[in-house]
Amino acid sequence: MSNPQPLKFLGIPGSLRRDSYNLALLRTAEELLPPHITLDIFTLHDIPMYNSDVEREATPEPVIAFREAIKAADALIISTPEYNYSIPGVLKNGIDWGSRRAEDTVSPLFQKPIAIMGAGGRLGTALAQRHLRDILLHEQAPLVLYPQVMVAGAWQEFDENGHLNNDRYRQQISNLLTALAQLAYQQQSLTNNS
Amino acid sequence: MSNPQPLKFLGIPGSLRRDSYNLALLRTAEELLPPHITLDIFTLHDIPMYNSDVEREATPEPVIAFREAIKAADALIISTPEYNYSIPGVLKNGIDWGSRRAEDTVSPLFQKPIAIMGAGGRLGTALAQRHLRDILLHEQAPLVLYPQVMVAGAWQEFDENGHLNNDRYRQQISNLLTALAQLAYQQQSLTNNS
Amino acid sequence: MSNPQPLKFLGIPGSLRRDSYNLALLRTAEELLPPHITLDIFTLHDIPMYNSDVEREATPEPVIAFREAIKAADALIISTPEYNYSIPGVLKNGIDWGSRRAEDTVSPLFQKPIAIMGAGGRLGTALAQRHLRDILLHEQAPLVLYPQVMVAGAWQEFDENGHLNNDRYRQQISNLLTALAQLAYQQQSLTNNS
Amino acid sequence: MSNPQPLKFLGIPGSLRRDSYNLALLRTAEELLPPHITLDIFTLHDIPMYNSDVEREATPEPVIAFREAIKAADALIISTPEYNYSIPGVLKNGIDWGSRRAEDTVSPLFQKPIAIMGAGGRLGTALAQRHLRDILLHEQAPLVLYPQVMVAGAWQEFDENGHLNNDRYRQQISNLLTALAQLAYQQQSLTNNS
Repeated sequence: MSNPQPLKFLGIPGSLRRDSYNLALLRTAEELLPPHITLDIFTLHDIPMYNSDVEREATPEPVIAFREAIKAADALIISTPEYNYSIPGVLKNGIDWGSRRAEDTVSPLFQKPIAIMGAGGRLGTALAQRHLRDILLHEQAPLVLYPQVMVAGAWQEFDENGHLNNDRYRQQISNLLTALAQLAYQQQSLTNNS
Repeated sequence: MSNPQPLKFLGIPGSLRRDSYNLALLRTAEELLPPHITLDIFTLHDIPMYNSDVEREATPEPVIAFREAIKAADALIISTPEYNYSIPGVLKNGIDWGSRRAEDTVSPLFQKPIAIMGAGGRLGTALAQRHLRDILLHEQAPLVLYPQVMVAGAWQEFDENGHLNNDRYRQQISNLLTALAQLAYQQQSLTNNS
Repeated sequence: MSNPQPLKFLGIPGSLRRDSYNLALLRTAEELLPPHITLDIFTLHDIPMYNSDVEREATPEPVIAFREAIKAADALIISTPEYNYSIPGVLKNGIDWGSRRAEDTVSPLFQKPIAIMGAGGRLGTALAQRHLRDILLHEQAPLVLYPQVMVAGAWQEFDENGHLNNDRYRQQISNLLTALAQLAYQQQSLTNNS
Repeated sequence: MSNPQPLKFLGIPGSLRRDSYNLALLRTAEELLPPHITLDIFTLHDIPMYNSDVEREATPEPVIAFREAIKAADALIISTPEYNYSIPGVLKNGIDWGSRRAEDTVSPLFQKPIAIMGAGGRLGTALAQRHLRDILLHEQAPLVLYPQVMVAGAWQEFDENGHLNNDRYRQQISNLLTALAQLAYQQQSLTNNS
């Protein structure tokens, strides 16, 4: 493919920490992207707790912005830490808002191609990623099946500037991005044919 | 046991909705409690998003109150809806704060006896409850194994005042409370012996 | 598509019972297939327990036949009951053999498109299907995301001849077959382009 | 406790391999047991595939022996490898037979105290153990919550005689046995009081 079609990815870190390893993982993805793909990062600081009483009155502004960012993206990359053997409540809450239909005919997350990665402790967020796959099935989101990027012992893998030094993980992220692009093109072709 | 020892249960609804079926399920539990057990209900409206940058400066006031309520309780009852095949982000976020050590030697949730129930759709929150069991293993919380209270088609089971009419579910909740009391006494006896 | 390319599906029932509802579900799929798709059914009666000591000496004949049947198929349909909140050991054992490389460069199950369905009790095999999705991720098998066919209260849905009477479930199976065909064509196109 | 009451543990390896690391893990447990606890090991070589047609005619002899061994034990230790992100079909099939009521009023596995451990690859059977916990909930088996013994990179941890050299893992197994004994006494006391 000599002139690949441009793609827009949206990166969502599961942690709110300023020096989050998972935010750093998304910055690494940014470095590794081919020129025809852009990656915006959306952090969840301003998303309020999901409450259907609130939703019934009006969708909060930051949620509208989040939903629009998802809809504008061809695919998502979620980078999640592992809290209590699962994804953070912060991330799940973002998904809870992103999976609501609101004034749309389908939810912003519906059938959205998604890649998962994570930086964490000894198991490299393996258990959190399993939960995340369960969760994203609800919106029929096609997920990248391989590679599964699981950065174990994250504190050893990044330098003080948040740079990921490990070449094996960098290669995995690069492969994940390629697989996500393929999934995004595939989804576009399905949508165009239907 | 002619004079059972008093117990304090803390009920946590997974939803913030004012007319939440899961809040109503906890109110039903209140009705069914024997006189020596009290049940306080703690809703998660004021708990902010977990952020370790914030935590490092100071634990927010509402979180302190939540943590104290957990510590003061002999056992917890969590009543959860199912959002996206898992527990709500709101509830997971509460657990994320409750599992932090902060200034304590162990987390408030550490080895806390817990009963799970849920009111939801066709599967009666079966998938959310599976995730919740996974999650609570992290703090080694002993969970009631039986019964598993899963109220399916919740909208048909409560009247307009939030009263649960279904006798089978009421009996299950009653059995759940008995099992939780047993677990609480058991945990006390372990702690006293150690 | 006026002349769709022929496809070969392989159906695997998770139960060995002669009058298995899950075998009956596969027979229903047979009835609903368009003419360009064939469905062979492979039952696991003759597959021995997986034992790597045995495997090292020689792959047993029935296992070879099973592996060849998987390799010859464009896609699989697994129809599973739920035993102890998971898939039967019988089915898992078949997958354990099917995921071995043996003399092949990749395992027979590697990246094989698969549709899941199940007939069971109150939850309609929802928990078994969750485990099965976890399991099949190992071989990077693309799975149909929708519909999720979960026949609850199976004993009420089939007549004495094993005929599925419920039109809603029949429609779901038909949609599942369509989605699996699409997945199979997609996988072929990926393989041809690589 | 100066004269602890004798206990009988039954160890079940999830693999049939003669030099299985998980069998070796059970042998390690044998070495570490206090004198008042015995550990028999039951391997699943002779257990046929579960088939309810077969079961209806007669429970096969090896299954009867397995069921009797479970019933005679005060508690079980299951040591499992991880195949395809889950427990082996061989082990699941054993559980499928062990959870049947047959001529008993409750299944042999019903409320049986169980400890889980596993030796495997990079994640140390973490995903298999998660599935196993899900599965054993069905029979309301109280499971040891801590420690979770997960031997990663098993090939490096055992010498050619199957001796586990790693002291950290040996200590964990010792703690697991202590926790299982406590669970067994607790279960006996519940049964005696009811």
